[in-house]
Amino acid sequence: MKIALIGAGNLATNLGKAVKKAGHEVLEVFSRTEESASTLASTLGCPFTTDLQMLTSDADIYIISVKDSVLEPVAMDAVKGREGKLFVHTAGSMPLTSIPNERRGVFYPMQTFSKQKEVDFSIIPCFVEAAMEEDRDLLVQLGKSISNTVCELSTDDRKYLHLSAVFCCNFVNHCYALSEKILKEHGGVPFDVMLPLVEETFNKVKTHSPRTVQTGPAVRWDENVIRKQEALLAKDETMQAIYKLLSKSIHDDQL
Amino acid sequence: MKIALIGAGNLATNLGKAVKKAGHEVLEVFSRTEESASTLASTLGCPFTTDLQMLTSDADIYIISVKDSVLEPVAMDAVKGREGKLFVHTAGSMPLTSIPNERRGVFYPMQTFSKQKEVDFSIIPCFVEAAMEEDRDLLVQLGKSISNTVCELSTDDRKYLHLSAVFCCNFVNHCYALSEKILKEHGGVPFDVMLPLVEETFNKVKTHSPRTVQTGPAVRWDENVIRKQEALLAKDETMQAIYKLLSKSIHDDQL
Repeated sequence: MKIALIGAGNLATNLGKAVKKAGHEVLEVFSRTEESASTLASTLGCPFTTDLQMLTSDADIYIISVKDSVLEPVAMDAVKGREGKLFVHTAGSMPLTSIPNERRGVFYPMQTFSKQKEVDFSIIPCFVEAAMEEDRDLLVQLGKSISNTVCELSTDDRKYLHLSAVFCCNFVNHCYALSEKILKEHGGVPFDVMLPLVEETFNKVKTHSPRTVQTGPAVRWDENVIRKQEALLAKDETMQAIYKLLSKSIHDDQL
Repeated sequence: MKIALIGAGNLATNLGKAVKKAGHEVLEVFSRTEESASTLASTLGCPFTTDLQMLTSDADIYIISVKDSVLEPVAMDAVKGREGKLFVHTAGSMPLTSIPNERRGVFYPMQTFSKQKEVDFSIIPCFVEAAMEEDRDLLVQLGKSISNTVCELSTDDRKYLHLSAVFCCNFVNHCYALSEKILKEHGGVPFDVMLPLVEETFNKVKTHSPRTVQTGPAVRWDENVIRKQEALLAKDETMQAIYKLLSKSIHDDQL
């Protein structure tokens, strides 16, 4: 397929590389920022533009991968004059209707993309949705060419999927960050020492429902330890509130 | 070394297997519950008792691995008449002084132990502390025979280490549990689909400080998505409070 990329951030970069590797043709990259546009274009070996009106009209699929807050205006500009083409966005929490075109769709690869680290796209589940059946088939085909897991999912269910991802990725990572912060401030044990524990915590949920393998003071409701640990966080109001709320939630979930 | 195990829970079971595998001799197992005592004793091929006064007096090290709330009374009973021996406990948050004996120590293997899953002890960091130098050397020696990572750590620093472990293990696991709960209630995507995301989140912190690789709506402070996701949790007050608090904390940590 012939693809045009609108946006040149982490997701667009990873997706662009994956579609190229799968044998599709990336015709052109658009980004308002010349540096981002040229960086991604040179990675993919294609031209770029910073003027959306000048973007190629020859692509089969236009993939819009921009910040949620600018998705609607960018989509409106992109569609103009290219109404016969398929436009898709890649945002977990934005509805199909963010794109003002009859041929519209969503292609949401659920992963945490960082500039610092390349990812293997084949293991990333991709969730697709489209207004028209042929477009949905096209997106499933595109998905299967780069990933082992492609599912159809409605806008409503995708919102909850994205919310679920915030818990098991962003919030999990924040718990790692708070764990590291505690170590830095007391005793100086490096966070690396926690990695076997972190890995085992992850390994367990590969084969067990997380609720059933919970351990620690909160699930045992060991009030003596809980009160002492709360007291250790007395100087940091937010961390203490997080400790109390998560401990209570762990306990309540077992009832 | 000749070892006696006081307690037959998850930690005692895993530790008992590890010391036996390393060539130490487990002389006897004590547990108040006959079933637990006999199960562990038969696993280790040693006798058991449910009467602490009847426990062997021939061990070099008595390892007390019981609930924090009963540690002090159990330790007091165990020491009685065996004052010349070394007694250690395995609790992250309990002080060295929980054991009323001159020869006392702590042997804290930092891992999440479940009955459901056996662990490889060699990758578990063990933190030791002792009142007397010779006993500390003995515990370091015991540690090195079963684990690649043995560190000395004071009672005070160990308290913070344990708190840090609650964040990167128990709280992380609870975020997994909440993620699964959201999926179960909406759309029915199985939690397995989240595993590549969960794994990548873990993989990133093997080589990067967690704070520096945060992604998602909170770190971008994408208020539009944040408000919409809060609204999706309107029916669950606790989950909504967790969402708000963690999102704010992620954002504040970047300032």
